[in-house]
Amino acid sequence: MQSPVVIDLKFDPETVVHALKTAFPGRETINLADPANRGRDLSGIAYAVCWNPDHDLFARMPDLKVIFSGGAGVDKILAIPTLPKEVPIVRFVDDTLTNRMSEYVVLQCLTHLRQVATYAAMQKRREWRELPQPEAADLTVGMMGLGVLGLDAARKLKMMGFNVIGWSRTKKTVEGMETFDAAGLDTFLGRTDILVGLLPLTAETTGLYNAALFAKLRQGGALGKPVFINAGRGKSQVTADVVEAIRSGVLRGASLDVFEEEPLPADNPAWGVEEIILTPHAAAASDERALFRAVERQIARFERGEPLENLVNRTIGY
Amino acid sequence: MQSPVVIDLKFDPETVVHALKTAFPGRETINLADPANRGRDLSGIAYAVCWNPDHDLFARMPDLKVIFSGGAGVDKILAIPTLPKEVPIVRFVDDTLTNRMSEYVVLQCLTHLRQVATYAAMQKRREWRELPQPEAADLTVGMMGLGVLGLDAARKLKMMGFNVIGWSRTKKTVEGMETFDAAGLDTFLGRTDILVGLLPLTAETTGLYNAALFAKLRQGGALGKPVFINAGRGKSQVTADVVEAIRSGVLRGASLDVFEEEPLPADNPAWGVEEIILTPHAAAASDERALFRAVERQIARFERGEPLENLVNRTIGY
Repeated sequence: MQSPVVIDLKFDPETVVHALKTAFPGRETINLADPANRGRDLSGIAYAVCWNPDHDLFARMPDLKVIFSGGAGVDKILAIPTLPKEVPIVRFVDDTLTNRMSEYVVLQCLTHLRQVATYAAMQKRREWRELPQPEAADLTVGMMGLGVLGLDAARKLKMMGFNVIGWSRTKKTVEGMETFDAAGLDTFLGRTDILVGLLPLTAETTGLYNAALFAKLRQGGALGKPVFINAGRGKSQVTADVVEAIRSGVLRGASLDVFEEEPLPADNPAWGVEEIILTPHAAAASDERALFRAVERQIARFERGEPLENLVNRTIGY
Repeated sequence: MQSPVVIDLKFDPETVVHALKTAFPGRETINLADPANRGRDLSGIAYAVCWNPDHDLFARMPDLKVIFSGGAGVDKILAIPTLPKEVPIVRFVDDTLTNRMSEYVVLQCLTHLRQVATYAAMQKRREWRELPQPEAADLTVGMMGLGVLGLDAARKLKMMGFNVIGWSRTKKTVEGMETFDAAGLDTFLGRTDILVGLLPLTAETTGLYNAALFAKLRQGGALGKPVFINAGRGKSQVTADVVEAIRSGVLRGASLDVFEEEPLPADNPAWGVEEIILTPHAAAASDERALFRAVERQIARFERGEPLENLVNRTIGY
């Protein structure tokens, strides 16, 4: 008998229900968002697809064989104390997620490059005036995080004409891109006009994007001042420092998709800063159908005895 | 003796003067924006670099050998009655211009795809809510104009994940892209979610982007309604029809960089339409230094007896 799949996603409930209708053909799914499943016995079940799961989920699943993350980030799963030690965790990194993230990153870099906010203000005033305009090749984007998402975004930014340099904790060799590691951080930041954060959340990246880091970014580049874009994890960012760096003129602007606390409270000053482009953790929402297709694929591999793909390394945290 | 170069550009005067300081080493330049040159004898001079030139320019230059356009569009030059019949016209199409145009086109397509205006309005209301979000692959961009600019933008849009189809007056075969010609216009429009105009201005393209054309674009695609982006020539567009198509719900939105009359008069309603992203013919401003470098290169070729590049075909108008 095929093991059912437990679903504990905190995504839009209707979208999940809709996507589940056609997912996992021939296999039962147990959606924990359905109140009818609240106290249900989950023993004997091998698979869980989860994102920000209930803290008792793993305690309720003594026979769990594979944990599937609903997104690329797994810090919420790794933070659960009852997480079983030996169960493999598979991240969701598929083309949909990657493409959507690159859409966001390229869009934000171009938006800052092309002075969209200034032109929008001029349109409101009905003012016809061309601004001095650097081109992409005049700017260097510093990509922090060189996983699947960071590398795809970097490749597309290069194709748009930007200079791109990369940073990762441990040195990565990437053809056609100068890269830096932990020891080279200050050099990397000093050459960066647009900083793009695509790092996973770990102990080392918690609070990393703060005033001290912003102060090290290049001043006097083609846009005058640096820009910060974060589409990685909210807890890597000190939002109050972003706001203050803009107010004090250290940063020219920012695009923030993630925050320490989500939803971002309505009284957070970041909402009202004109130089911040704020989105509600929407840079690369997983497409639920794509997620379930990816899980189906990995379950099929697992049941044929083939190795799982996109496995999380718990030691490094992603 | 090296022939001087006459400059009649209606660009920002200071930028032109600045760029001329280092341009054309060893060769005199005569900038007609300088009042001192107003009545100057231009006979014996072989080269003119012009953009929207004075109507008496060519009458004043009986020994003109090559006309260099300050941009990719040459309709303003071709419209001058005294344009000498036998003098070759060289368009300015260099990497800078091409890259800047593709920056604009990709930025606008991503801006409409990613519902930037809706998210900006939500930010103002401090509303944290994720919108249903198609990805680039769910949309088809219809590229009208398959010259250097159109092909580069199409390539970059494809790399961002968009489906791209192409249209040109006469059929062009482009690897990896379905293309249409004059006879296939309605089919092309019926499959287009985002229409990008990069056509030259000719008799046939004057007023082309009008209500009748917008009505043929695909309704019910992944964004619900079609979008129109024009970075080609203003006289190809009936701006009043764009405004009306948005008001009546035929178009979802538009990005307009060019207009029938420029500067766009302050009382034009397009300024005030929220769904229109309006820029002052700034999509791909020629970089003056790059322009002069390109002209230097072509003059060198011409004086070595080599064929000129990027020659205008006057019969077809570009």
